Amino acid sequence: MKIQKAVITAGARWQRTLPLQSLIDRDGQERTVLRILLDEVRRAGIDEIAVVIPAGDEAEFARAAGDRNVKFIEQREPAGYAHAIHCARAFTAGQPFLHLVGDHLYAGGNGVSPTERVVEIAEAEGCTVSAVQATRETLLSHYGAIGGQRVTGKPDLYRVTKVLEKPTPTEAEQELPISGLRAGHYLCFFGMHVLTPSVMEILERGLAEPGEKITLSAALSELAAREQYLAVEQTARRYDIGAKYGLFYAQLALGLNGRDRNALLAQLLELVALHNTETHEIGQGA
Amino acid sequence: MKIQKAVITAGARWQRTLPLQSLIDRDGQERTVLRILLDEVRRAGIDEIAVVIPAGDEAEFARAAGDRNVKFIEQREPAGYAHAIHCARAFTAGQPFLHLVGDHLYAGGNGVSPTERVVEIAEAEGCTVSAVQATRETLLSHYGAIGGQRVTGKPDLYRVTKVLEKPTPTEAEQELPISGLRAGHYLCFFGMHVLTPSVMEILERGLAEPGEKITLSAALSELAAREQYLAVEQTARRYDIGAKYGLFYAQLALGLNGRDRNALLAQLLELVALHNTETHEIGQGA
Repeated sequence: MKIQKAVITAGARWQRTLPLQSLIDRDGQERTVLRILLDEVRRAGIDEIAVVIPAGDEAEFARAAGDRNVKFIEQREPAGYAHAIHCARAFTAGQPFLHLVGDHLYAGGNGVSPTERVVEIAEAEGCTVSAVQATRETLLSHYGAIGGQRVTGKPDLYRVTKVLEKPTPTEAEQELPISGLRAGHYLCFFGMHVLTPSVMEILERGLAEPGEKITLSAALSELAAREQYLAVEQTARRYDIGAKYGLFYAQLALGLNGRDRNALLAQLLELVALHNTETHEIGQGA
Repeated sequence: MKIQKAVITAGARWQRTLPLQSLIDRDGQERTVLRILLDEVRRAGIDEIAVVIPAGDEAEFARAAGDRNVKFIEQREPAGYAHAIHCARAFTAGQPFLHLVGDHLYAGGNGVSPTERVVEIAEAEGCTVSAVQATRETLLSHYGAIGGQRVTGKPDLYRVTKVLEKPTPTEAEQELPISGLRAGHYLCFFGMHVLTPSVMEILERGLAEPGEKITLSAALSELAAREQYLAVEQTARRYDIGAKYGLFYAQLALGLNGRDRNALLAQLLELVALHNTETHEIGQGA
């Protein structure tokens, strides 16, 4: 199986400006979040890329992409994340594709590209693969989480048997145990998947049904019940730039991993010292 | 003299997206840079605000402003900063006005609003007033700088006699000495002025002349030769968000001055520890 296409979702109106924000990348160059994601996709050897965007925002996104070869697909109604992926069905045209969310950035991982790794496994195994990361149970309310078994001889690979969207710690403990993880940690989605046509079909059917709309987690749980579905644990870190201070922490992580590391650390210390007006309060452990 | 109008310049195309970027303010709320500047202007009691923007960008700026009472003025040619101010001449209509650059943010200052202070002095003294900050000579190439004398009995006030745009350290030493400043420091512009109609007239005349276009610094130097012109030294810090990592440092300064200070410091330390892969290099003083 060869992965030749990628779909980045950025359709939600509350996050519409996130991919347009600018950061300094590891090389010390200014790039938009969208540009960083596009470059990350290309590192995995994929050139056919679609971005699902809010209706009416193509001019801004095209400027942020700085690249004429990207296809923009409007999500015409605010119908959620699974629907945004499904908006790309004509573009993916029955082929497997890499999928990234538009509000996560990645840093660290000792030079291993997370997209390269997930694509490599999907191509070798010929199945849907989700990138996951061991995540504290206090953060379960932000993510989809998987249950499954380690693949023998491959320390970063899991055979997924179940997916729950934003489980409670109790649900996760009962239904998503993974042997060998640190206590109170679960494997949560990383915002990066290779999805096969089977997933698009499950979404298609689920979205057509009346009532509450299907989530990507529910679709992947259904997939896990009938096909091989793997998860790969990533060593890089994900930064949710839609969270409070998310963009700031993403910038810090990129900077600390890059060529400007020492200058950045020096300036951080200077600013902390300059604005250190509450020392006694901190000293008291307030 | 009562200041009732304000002009924010954001016309330069290279900085066109800066005022549209989002930050978390001191209160822990997300706001765009433009919104933070508009709120800062309103703190000084000014409600009539115009923003000079690149041609064609009004929709994006209006969204970032989130405020229907702001007037947008297009700078139709990339003719520089002094020209951008001059684009607002119909709006200011012969009245004095507060002027802020669109690519600076302010933090610190122990709760004293820099705009309130500069407006207060302009209204009391009835003249043009520039906010300034003692700045290391290594940074002179980024700013306009003033020479002058301290006003007796007012430790933060200076009577300006000369202004040079981006002077060399030698020029500054010879022409812009200020008694009482730390060695190697000069009073540089802060990106904030109250400008009288005289300044707009000097700009009008200067821009009409052939050859190299007049700068705001040159106009203010001309003003200093014939009218009272004051500078007020600010205790807050300016953050040039157009500089490399500028937005990041502005966010850090806002955060360290605000209610999220302790959470931010804890997260900073965690990220520095997580990405601390070059300890020995730093230890060696590389």
